[in-house]
Amino acid sequence: MAKQKLVTLTTDFGTADPYAAAMKGVLLSRCPQARVVDISHDVPPQDVLAGAMVLAQAAPHFPPDTVHVVVVDPGVGTERGILAACFGKQTFLFPDNGVITLLAERLPLAQIVAVRNAQYLPPAQPSRTFHGRDIFAPVAGHLLNGVPLEQLGPQPDTYKLLELPAPAAGTDEIVAQVIYVDRFGNLVSCIDETLLGGYWQRLEAMRVTCAGHEIGPLVGAYGFVEPGQPLALINSMGYVEVAVNRGSAAEALGAGVGAEVRIRFE
Amino acid sequence: MAKQKLVTLTTDFGTADPYAAAMKGVLLSRCPQARVVDISHDVPPQDVLAGAMVLAQAAPHFPPDTVHVVVVDPGVGTERGILAACFGKQTFLFPDNGVITLLAERLPLAQIVAVRNAQYLPPAQPSRTFHGRDIFAPVAGHLLNGVPLEQLGPQPDTYKLLELPAPAAGTDEIVAQVIYVDRFGNLVSCIDETLLGGYWQRLEAMRVTCAGHEIGPLVGAYGFVEPGQPLALINSMGYVEVAVNRGSAAEALGAGVGAEVRIRFE
Amino acid sequence: MAKQKLVTLTTDFGTADPYAAAMKGVLLSRCPQARVVDISHDVPPQDVLAGAMVLAQAAPHFPPDTVHVVVVDPGVGTERGILAACFGKQTFLFPDNGVITLLAERLPLAQIVAVRNAQYLPPAQPSRTFHGRDIFAPVAGHLLNGVPLEQLGPQPDTYKLLELPAPAAGTDEIVAQVIYVDRFGNLVSCIDETLLGGYWQRLEAMRVTCAGHEIGPLVGAYGFVEPGQPLALINSMGYVEVAVNRGSAAEALGAGVGAEVRIRFE
Repeated sequence: MAKQKLVTLTTDFGTADPYAAAMKGVLLSRCPQARVVDISHDVPPQDVLAGAMVLAQAAPHFPPDTVHVVVVDPGVGTERGILAACFGKQTFLFPDNGVITLLAERLPLAQIVAVRNAQYLPPAQPSRTFHGRDIFAPVAGHLLNGVPLEQLGPQPDTYKLLELPAPAAGTDEIVAQVIYVDRFGNLVSCIDETLLGGYWQRLEAMRVTCAGHEIGPLVGAYGFVEPGQPLALINSMGYVEVAVNRGSAAEALGAGVGAEVRIRFE
Repeated sequence: MAKQKLVTLTTDFGTADPYAAAMKGVLLSRCPQARVVDISHDVPPQDVLAGAMVLAQAAPHFPPDTVHVVVVDPGVGTERGILAACFGKQTFLFPDNGVITLLAERLPLAQIVAVRNAQYLPPAQPSRTFHGRDIFAPVAGHLLNGVPLEQLGPQPDTYKLLELPAPAAGTDEIVAQVIYVDRFGNLVSCIDETLLGGYWQRLEAMRVTCAGHEIGPLVGAYGFVEPGQPLALINSMGYVEVAVNRGSAAEALGAGVGAEVRIRFE
Repeated sequence: MAKQKLVTLTTDFGTADPYAAAMKGVLLSRCPQARVVDISHDVPPQDVLAGAMVLAQAAPHFPPDTVHVVVVDPGVGTERGILAACFGKQTFLFPDNGVITLLAERLPLAQIVAVRNAQYLPPAQPSRTFHGRDIFAPVAGHLLNGVPLEQLGPQPDTYKLLELPAPAAGTDEIVAQVIYVDRFGNLVSCIDETLLGGYWQRLEAMRVTCAGHEIGPLVGAYGFVEPGQPLALINSMGYVEVAVNRGSAAEALGAGVGAEVRIRFE
C-alpha cells in the first residue's frame, strides 16, 4: 500500500481566521499527496495545557508514521525552540513549551531533535508571528517527504514539560484538581484510573465531591443517573470525571479548571 | 475508478475536544484509504432532533456507498442499541434513539440490522462513555473494508423514530412550530412545501405570522425585502422558514425551537 | 503525478448546520476524486469584507490549479452575478459582491468570466436561498473535471470591488482603521507594511495609538512585551496590528472593526 502521508494539525488558531488554512496550503504545496486531518483548531487561545490534553487523547489513535503538527505557541517569535520527536511510532513537531507533556506520558520517546538546520528552515526571515505557516508547515512537509528527524538538528539537552497538578493520595482520601473542561461541561480531574487501583478493595465506599458539592459514588455511564443529576465516572481518557447527565457540570457546579475534586473512602 | 471509501461524521462532540479526532484516528487506522468528511461536530450537545435535521439535509447529497456515522448519543453506555442501515444507496451507522428519523423520511429503507455480532465489536470492554471511538469508528472501518451489513447482526423488530410536531392544517390556516434554528438565526418550521400544495390556488392570499409577529406573504429569496426586515420563504430544505434579510430572525423575533408559525389564507 | 483536484471552501455557513456538508456531498458526487479543504466556514454571517480577508490570506498558499469556492453571499437569489476567475495560477468561483477584492490586490488577474452558460448550470430551477449547493458546488465540479473557464460564460464588462478604508498618510502621521479582528482579539489595521517604507528613516520614532490608547513603538513579536501588555507589530499578513501579549486587544482596548489606528513619527 502506498505510504499514506497523513499529517494532523492541533492549534489554537480557531476556524474563523485564515491561519489554519494557510498552513494547509503550505503543507499541500510542499507535499501534494499529504492528507491533512484536523485534530483541533479550537484549543483555547494560548492554553498549552489544554493543547497537551487534546493532543494526548487524539494522536495515539492515528496510524503509525502520522506526522502530528502542534502550534499552541504563545512564545512565537521569542527564543523558545521547535522540536521534532518520535513517540511510539508517530512523529511530532511542536514548540518547546510543554505541549507534549501528556502525550509523553502515554507513548515512549524514541527520538527527539531541536529543529535548527538552516537547510530545512525558510531561506528568508520568517514572520515572527506566524511560525505555523512559515516554519512548522514547511518542516512538516520535509518530514512527509521522507527527511529523517536527525537531519533537522541535534538532540537537545533537555525539553520542557509542564508541571501538572498531582493528586494528593492519602489513606482515606484523594484530593485533586480539574485539569480540563470539555464541550459538554464535563470536569476532567487529574486522577488517573491507575491511581484508584491502590484502593480497589474500597471502591464501593468511595464518595466524590467537586467544588464543595456532593456527587456520590462512581457510576458506569452518564445515563446511570437521572437527567440533570450530577455523577462521577472513569471517563474515556481514563481519568475521574465529574459530569451531569444530559447537562453541564461546569455550569451546574460553577466549576472549571483548578476546581477541587475530592474522593473519600468511607 | 477505485472505490472511494468515503465516510462522514455527524456528532455533537464539538471541535475543541479530542473526541472527533480520536474517531478519525481509529477510522484511518482500521481503513487507511478512508476519506473522512465532517458533516458536523457542532450539533448542540445531546440534541437528537437537531442531529436528525443536519443528517437528513446533508447525507443525501453524498455519492452512493458513502458510510455515514452518527454519534449524537445521550444514552451512551445504557441499553440503547446501535443500528446499521442502508437508506437509498447509502449506509448509516447510528444509535437507536431516533436520530435517523428525518433521513428516513427522505430516502427509502433498504436494509437494517442491529449491530450485535461479537466478531465485529471490540474484544475488550469498551469505555461506556465514548462509543464513538470504541464501537462506531471500528464498526465503520469494517463497513468501509467491505463487511456486509447482514454480518453485523440480525434485523431488529423495530427501531426508534422521533415524534415530530406535525402541522395542524385546516381550511384557512396551518399552525405549526419551529423545529430548527440555523447559524443565521433562520427559523425553520415543520411545514413542508408539499403540504402547501393543497392550498396552491390560494398561495397569493397567504400570510405568515411567527411568535405573534406579522411576517407577510411568502417571498422568493432573502434579498426580496429590505435589509433588517422579516420575511418567510420556502427554504433550501423545502420547509417554510422565517428569516430576516441580513439579520437574525431568532434575535429579532425572540423566537426559537418550539415557537409557533401560523399561515392564514385570507 | 496525478492532478490533485484540490478544492477549497470559504463560506459563512458555520459548522453546525448542514449547508457546508451538503456542498461537499455535491462536490464529491460530481468529482469523486476531489479533495475538499476547508478554508473557513466561520466567516461572520454576511460579512463580505471578513470573507475577503480570509480568502486573500489563505488562498495564495495553495498549490497551482486549486479551485477556491467562496460563498459569502448575502445577495443570494437576487440579480447579483456569479463569477469564475483565474488569479495567479489559481481558480476562484465567487459571487460578484466584492469578496474577491483583497485577493485581487495580491495575485494578478489572468482571466474572468460571468457564469451564465445554461449547459453548466442546474437544469431545474435552483433554490433561491442555497446557491452554494445548487450552483457553486456543481460548477466547481465542472471546473475540477476540466471544463475551461471560457466555456462557463462571457467576460463581464466589470466586476465589483469593495471600497476599503484607505490610510491617510501625512508627513508626521498615518491615520487608519481596524479592518479585521481575529480570534485572538488582534486588531488588524489597513496599514500595509509597504506604506511604512516611505518612513523608513523614522521608524524608531514611530508611536502607535489605537482607539485613543497609547500602544508604543512597533515591536518584533508578541512575546517582546510582558503578558497582558499591548503592543503593535507588522503581522503575518503584512499589516500593522495592535495586540496584547497572551491576551485580547479587542477586549482590553474595547475596540473592533472601524476603530482608529494612528501612527505618529515624533
